[in-house]
Amino acid sequence: MKNIILLGSGNVATHLGIALKNSNYTIVQVYSKSIKNAKILANKLEAHFTNDLTKLKSADLIIVCINDDAISSVLSQIKNTAIVHTSGSIGLDVFKEKFSNYGVFYPLQTFNKEVDINISKIPFCIEGNSLGFEKQLIKIAKALSNNVVKMNSQQRKQLHIAAVFACNFSNHMYSIADDLLAKKNIDFKILLPLIRKTIANLENYRPKEVQTGPAKRKDTAIIQEHIATIKEKEIKELYQTISANIIKYHE
Amino acid sequence: MKNIILLGSGNVATHLGIALKNSNYTIVQVYSKSIKNAKILANKLEAHFTNDLTKLKSADLIIVCINDDAISSVLSQIKNTAIVHTSGSIGLDVFKEKFSNYGVFYPLQTFNKEVDINISKIPFCIEGNSLGFEKQLIKIAKALSNNVVKMNSQQRKQLHIAAVFACNFSNHMYSIADDLLAKKNIDFKILLPLIRKTIANLENYRPKEVQTGPAKRKDTAIIQEHIATIKEKEIKELYQTISANIIKYHE
Repeated sequence: MKNIILLGSGNVATHLGIALKNSNYTIVQVYSKSIKNAKILANKLEAHFTNDLTKLKSADLIIVCINDDAISSVLSQIKNTAIVHTSGSIGLDVFKEKFSNYGVFYPLQTFNKEVDINISKIPFCIEGNSLGFEKQLIKIAKALSNNVVKMNSQQRKQLHIAAVFACNFSNHMYSIADDLLAKKNIDFKILLPLIRKTIANLENYRPKEVQTGPAKRKDTAIIQEHIATIKEKEIKELYQTISANIIKYHE
Repeated sequence: MKNIILLGSGNVATHLGIALKNSNYTIVQVYSKSIKNAKILANKLEAHFTNDLTKLKSADLIIVCINDDAISSVLSQIKNTAIVHTSGSIGLDVFKEKFSNYGVFYPLQTFNKEVDINISKIPFCIEGNSLGFEKQLIKIAKALSNNVVKMNSQQRKQLHIAAVFACNFSNHMYSIADDLLAKKNIDFKILLPLIRKTIANLENYRPKEVQTGPAKRKDTAIIQEHIATIKEKEIKELYQTISANIIKYHE
């Protein structure tokens, strides 16, 4: 499986395409709805390009790197070829009516076209519809990254929920902290050493073991004082709900 | 102000004491309720030690590094000396009836006696009851750290609430993620590259600017699917509450 077609020209397609080319895979062709975007990426990868799904060339593997919403409609327009998608939320099932060899090739990372990324550290979650095909996918993933994991669709869905808590929700906690500090003219950057320390703890401990703070200590005096101090109704409620959850969780 | 007495022998007292000694301050004496703990720290600092507050030696400054709950009772037993506490939650007022020169010397970090810490990167939040005394405190803090900030008691209280969101609550989000993954036999460490990326973004952007995820995208299909997938009632509710808050926050 050396000759690959990329469907998509966004962040994932760009980073994957470059990494595959650097690992001596040939990107045969780039498809995008937008012929302009297809051309930009194809030029980087020395590949053909098209915006017409009926004009796909033959290849060993198609990698679908397009928005979740568009996957079904695109699949309905292409012929049976070995194929994978790169989505954390879409199951393996999306391929099963039409394709013989199919799988998932999911890089667990936020990509941004403009930012260089060290792809060798990114976890790749791999699933194939047969052991043989899965092996071939794992081989490709290992050419790109040192962090390759076999994972079924149920596990991948759970991983996605866990990532929402660990990344999206924790980032929202930073946003709230930033807002609270801005109201008193304090720079959010003052929290960075403490945030970095919190993350550093995760290298050696489970997060539950290194939980600190008033809720962990069941320090209701401080909790009540904080709740009384917070002016915004929703932030107050969030403080209460999360504190109650921590207290219950550490009982 | 070169001769200092430490009240307390815990994590903060230990790290502060060592850092002060390394910066050529003299720790005259260590007080602790436990004579054994007082002795252990005093030996490290080449200081006298006591467990009797009526036997404090004379010094230029007393640094109170004991539990918030115990501060008032300890203060009632000591004579008027230049004095600071190291607590994020206790105001300057605690000193005002009895002392002439008083302040707060608050290092914003989680300390652990066993773990070496680079104190020069830790933010020190300083407040004094007079400009002159505040200047003296800032001088000491700058001998220890490159990150010294003047901050009044109201700001410090707000900073403490912000730190609860940014550190305690985000760590709880990691705990929930860890639990969700454990249920499907997935190692939490798979999330570390994504968590590290989330933190790296904070060096260059405000957290609100780099928020991602289903709630930020208002992707109600995925949100509903996640809520349906989560089995534990409280975790389900937390997912709903935080997602609703993100949606509202980014309107």
